[in-house]
Amino acid sequence: MDFSLLTMGQYSLVYNVMSLTIAAMFGTFIFVVLAKSQVGDKYKISLVVSSIVVAIAGYHYFRIFQSWESAFTLASGGYKPSGVPFNDAYRYVDWLITVPLLMVELVTVLALTKEKTSSLLTKLTIAAFLMIALGYPGESFHESTMFSNRGLWGTLSTIPFLYIMYILWVELGKALESQPAQVQVLVRNIRLLTIFTWGFYPIAYMAPFFGLSGAEAQVFLQAGYSIADILAKCGYGLMIYAIAREKTEYDKANNLA
Amino acid sequence: MDFSLLTMGQYSLVYNVMSLTIAAMFGTFIFVVLAKSQVGDKYKISLVVSSIVVAIAGYHYFRIFQSWESAFTLASGGYKPSGVPFNDAYRYVDWLITVPLLMVELVTVLALTKEKTSSLLTKLTIAAFLMIALGYPGESFHESTMFSNRGLWGTLSTIPFLYIMYILWVELGKALESQPAQVQVLVRNIRLLTIFTWGFYPIAYMAPFFGLSGAEAQVFLQAGYSIADILAKCGYGLMIYAIAREKTEYDKANNLA
Repeated sequence: MDFSLLTMGQYSLVYNVMSLTIAAMFGTFIFVVLAKSQVGDKYKISLVVSSIVVAIAGYHYFRIFQSWESAFTLASGGYKPSGVPFNDAYRYVDWLITVPLLMVELVTVLALTKEKTSSLLTKLTIAAFLMIALGYPGESFHESTMFSNRGLWGTLSTIPFLYIMYILWVELGKALESQPAQVQVLVRNIRLLTIFTWGFYPIAYMAPFFGLSGAEAQVFLQAGYSIADILAKCGYGLMIYAIAREKTEYDKANNLA
Repeated sequence: MDFSLLTMGQYSLVYNVMSLTIAAMFGTFIFVVLAKSQVGDKYKISLVVSSIVVAIAGYHYFRIFQSWESAFTLASGGYKPSGVPFNDAYRYVDWLITVPLLMVELVTVLALTKEKTSSLLTKLTIAAFLMIALGYPGESFHESTMFSNRGLWGTLSTIPFLYIMYILWVELGKALESQPAQVQVLVRNIRLLTIFTWGFYPIAYMAPFFGLSGAEAQVFLQAGYSIADILAKCGYGLMIYAIAREKTEYDKANNLA
């Protein structure tokens, strides 16, 4: 990604949104760790995984934040690139671990049969890993057309993405039928959050194809990634907690605990 | 190890893999600490040891990462050695503590008789300590032939390694017969993971004998060490957790808790 001179406002916007993200990640971490005692035993492991996701993301945002700081120096009228490259690869390193774990959160909180859990976990985590791993090589190509190396890797990465959507809507949909009504609603919502937030990443990936570049594009992408990550990790984690609570209460009311 | 100019890509690859390792270690730490409540009392100590291993390794990777950063400075077209030596000895300090502890994790999670546990622990931890301690002196010799000081210490270090393999396959093999079937499968898998991941270290140690040197070799070794450490510590710790869970469920089903 090309860096030009950033205005004070542009630099600060990214800086502040990244700091907000760090706070959101660690805030959610504390919530999930402390709220674990409020859910039934069967659902605790899902909250544990949720806490790992936000802790790892918080760590990476700390690094990204530091990289952002060192990539610029104060110049007259704004911030100019310092020559130290801004390390965006942290995002991929983060996703490589956290995106498969988001799938683990969702499957484990449903407390399905051992076979169903194991089958869904295998499919979803491998697909999530492939989706990230296949997107990464394309990031090093800054081509501006769809028919390019960037476009090729992006397309390859879309295959596991579509597979995940299929599993979430079709296979998981079937497994949902055995869940309490309120849980079904919550899982549908978290599924919508997933497709809504994950939708930002391919847009950012394709930004060069739309001719988006320079300072404004960079600010849009960095702020957009941060907000998408807050929703996809903190918001998602809180929804997982809501599902766990709902199931805990259902189990209690029906003597299933 | 000789350092030449690294390309941006080579430098970043090592940098990112090291950062990934820090994230993986601390992620596993959180998991093991929080998931301890999910296993029976007899198995908790094994998870405690597991948490220590990844915490210590995470700390060392933090140091190695900093050392990597300070060993290079940005130059035109890549990164050149800054003159500050890259401190690889952190790895040995780490292994000296963590490798014997990996053996403790495995023996304690099996919850064998007191005598058997004590006998296996003594043999395995002393052998693991010797294996690392004997390898270290050879690291200071950068000789390129097998018949050298490096080769001699490497060979000495191999003796305790082979002894550990003997204990794991023969003595532990006998102890396994009394374990539930599913636990036997899991222990066999963790034993395979051990031999598979530990196998990387002697290869790295012998790299100079194969004429591997320069930037590419260095990148291969650093990335390889990191990935081997993630598998041998995080992957291993998660497999220990799986064994503990399996045994906890078996105990419950058979009223042995």
